[in-house]
Amino acid sequence: MSVPRCRILSIGDELLLGRIADTNAAWIARWAWDLGLRVEGSEQVGDGQMAIVAALRRAAEGAELVVVTGGLGPTEDDRTRHALADALVRPLRASPVAERQIRARWARLRPGIPLADANLRQALVPAGATVLVNPAGTAPGIRARLDGAVVLCLPGVPQEMRTMLTGLAGRLPALLPGLRPPTVGELWLAGAGESEVQALIPGLLREADPMVGITVQDEGHLVLRAVGTPAQVRRTLAAARRPLAGLLLPAPGIAASVVAGLARRRARIACAESCTGGRIVAALTAVPGCSAVLGSSWVCYDQAAKTVLGVDPSVIRRHGVVSEAVAVAMAEAARRAAGAAYGLATTGIAGPGGGTRTCPVGTVHVACAGPTGSIVRRLALNGDRAAVLRRATHAALLLVWSALRGPVPVTAP
Amino acid sequence: MSVPRCRILSIGDELLLGRIADTNAAWIARWAWDLGLRVEGSEQVGDGQMAIVAALRRAAEGAELVVVTGGLGPTEDDRTRHALADALVRPLRASPVAERQIRARWARLRPGIPLADANLRQALVPAGATVLVNPAGTAPGIRARLDGAVVLCLPGVPQEMRTMLTGLAGRLPALLPGLRPPTVGELWLAGAGESEVQALIPGLLREADPMVGITVQDEGHLVLRAVGTPAQVRRTLAAARRPLAGLLLPAPGIAASVVAGLARRRARIACAESCTGGRIVAALTAVPGCSAVLGSSWVCYDQAAKTVLGVDPSVIRRHGVVSEAVAVAMAEAARRAAGAAYGLATTGIAGPGGGTRTCPVGTVHVACAGPTGSIVRRLALNGDRAAVLRRATHAALLLVWSALRGPVPVTAP
Repeated sequence: MSVPRCRILSIGDELLLGRIADTNAAWIARWAWDLGLRVEGSEQVGDGQMAIVAALRRAAEGAELVVVTGGLGPTEDDRTRHALADALVRPLRASPVAERQIRARWARLRPGIPLADANLRQALVPAGATVLVNPAGTAPGIRARLDGAVVLCLPGVPQEMRTMLTGLAGRLPALLPGLRPPTVGELWLAGAGESEVQALIPGLLREADPMVGITVQDEGHLVLRAVGTPAQVRRTLAAARRPLAGLLLPAPGIAASVVAGLARRRARIACAESCTGGRIVAALTAVPGCSAVLGSSWVCYDQAAKTVLGVDPSVIRRHGVVSEAVAVAMAEAARRAAGAAYGLATTGIAGPGGGTRTCPVGTVHVACAGPTGSIVRRLALNGDRAAVLRRATHAALLLVWSALRGPVPVTAP
Repeated sequence: MSVPRCRILSIGDELLLGRIADTNAAWIARWAWDLGLRVEGSEQVGDGQMAIVAALRRAAEGAELVVVTGGLGPTEDDRTRHALADALVRPLRASPVAERQIRARWARLRPGIPLADANLRQALVPAGATVLVNPAGTAPGIRARLDGAVVLCLPGVPQEMRTMLTGLAGRLPALLPGLRPPTVGELWLAGAGESEVQALIPGLLREADPMVGITVQDEGHLVLRAVGTPAQVRRTLAAARRPLAGLLLPAPGIAASVVAGLARRRARIACAESCTGGRIVAALTAVPGCSAVLGSSWVCYDQAAKTVLGVDPSVIRRHGVVSEAVAVAMAEAARRAAGAAYGLATTGIAGPGGGTRTCPVGTVHVACAGPTGSIVRRLALNGDRAAVLRRATHAALLLVWSALRGPVPVTAP
């Protein structure tokens, strides 16, 4: 039996205006391959109803599954449901199921405020189509059959779309006969770039039988994924594990690995962030269960805040506020003030202004104080302010992770 | 004269495998709009030659300019030039111009190493097409006319593609008569959802002349965008400004507006974050120049950290740690400890665990302490942990913004 094909349609003028990149399509493509579909193409269409109708018909001709995102909002320029009704040649009707969902959500989110008429527009569904519950937002999704293809219409908000597609995965085999979910295996890596990882596993990356690829994650780690039969995936991961041993993470993400490593040692960490301004703690608190390992933390953006935390003003005078010595002093002060086993600190210049000849924009010092002493690194980071802050956060978490990855002492610190 | 239309084609299996998002398409779309083209659609196609031929023909039928990226590399699976020759029904020929460029670059980058045959494949061009110099890489581009459309084929490497398109911008008016750069205007809004905004400006959203739409930004604000002639954009923004007066932000983002509002008052803010774990300070420090308005800040994730900051333990005992009273006490303690005009605090339950019947997951209290007293809000937020934390952060920033938006007192606090 042939592999069912998938086409992806992303709706919204903002995509064609180039205001945002279509990251939904890449996520959906991975979701589809993981379920055993072959992704044949993806397309971005504006908010115009006729353009959406044409794209829907074309996609349904060339695939067994069409995943559509966007254009389900409450405003007049959200036309996906109208376009779907046109393509199906069926009328739009208010769905009582959808209306109940919308009213219940509204009552919970805005108690006492009457529901705007525009929101009830989101309850419109082509006759005969199925309403898809949106547990993360207001706009329900729609499922319909167009020319034999299953069409899933989902909101364009990434979090809502992802939650809904994750929930729908289990129902797809019943909708698409012949779908055989492959095995998916992952290794999580940090401490090297994509090309360095590729050089360590020559010949392992491939597009089919099994599909093996590397993706760079926003959280700063890399994922090596293998998709194929159970035996193919097992062989691939076994072959990759030895050359990549020095880069392997125990959890999907550097922050998650740090939380796991601290928990294993029953240790806590305290952060004192200057330039990273809360991003390190934000990354740690994104991991459920981090409360067991996170102590008091500080954002000491200005010099006064650093001395209040306990950094000796003479260290700042002697070495300058952006220095290895101040980073170490901040990490040790945070560790002491919070009574934690580990202290983590950053001080640097994120830009765009503030750079000097000896200390240009992108200079960041990260320090980790622990039971057996402190380690510190000076980074020279590229990119704009956002990129420097993101990279500094990753480097700081990686520094703690490298301190934690050794064997756990018999007596916990 | 009608506006010339543009279609964007991105070639490469890695796009359909979901390994990378197509950020090229967004960049090209902005480039095209800035030049006065109307972007009609963009599409991602795999490396298969027949699929590329079909996509090229379809794009050339519906646009005056087709911008193609990818598939120009030296390997067997790079088929864009073969597909273009097929679509043009012309033979591929080795271009002496292209070969000279390739040899010169190779000699410069790898002196002494003989040129691989595969690289000369990159000198193949359909008969009658024009070679485009690639100053940033090896693969030359190709310009051709297909069904009256101008087709530009460029490498998929973002830096090479951008350099080449930037260089080509000046030549486009000669190739596409009728190009006239449009005006783009934006209003930044916060404090209401998309549907509430639409209800305030009935009939203003439209698909053309001018194009007027609303987009929701990751940072928590909305953007109302108008694209058209200068007069159309001016009229649209003037008509929208009065009904939306209560929602207007002075800067593109809530955090940027808070920083601007504090700077206008020469006031500083101190944050004490529990559940939001550094996200509020991270949002503020994403704004260049925030150092003038940001005082010491704390992440007080556990109860001990809150009392160390200065929250009376009896308040926590009486009201519970997730309560309006504790949020207010944290905001006031932060304000006091940092010597800042404003204090901002959050305490809540982000999930997935930790909820109770009276205090379910998604309950977050945000408090703002200021020179004239404190305000506090209880939020019931939906979504997973990441969504709850993102929304709590937006709500907290909005609370300060609402406190700051009034007239600046004659004597700054």
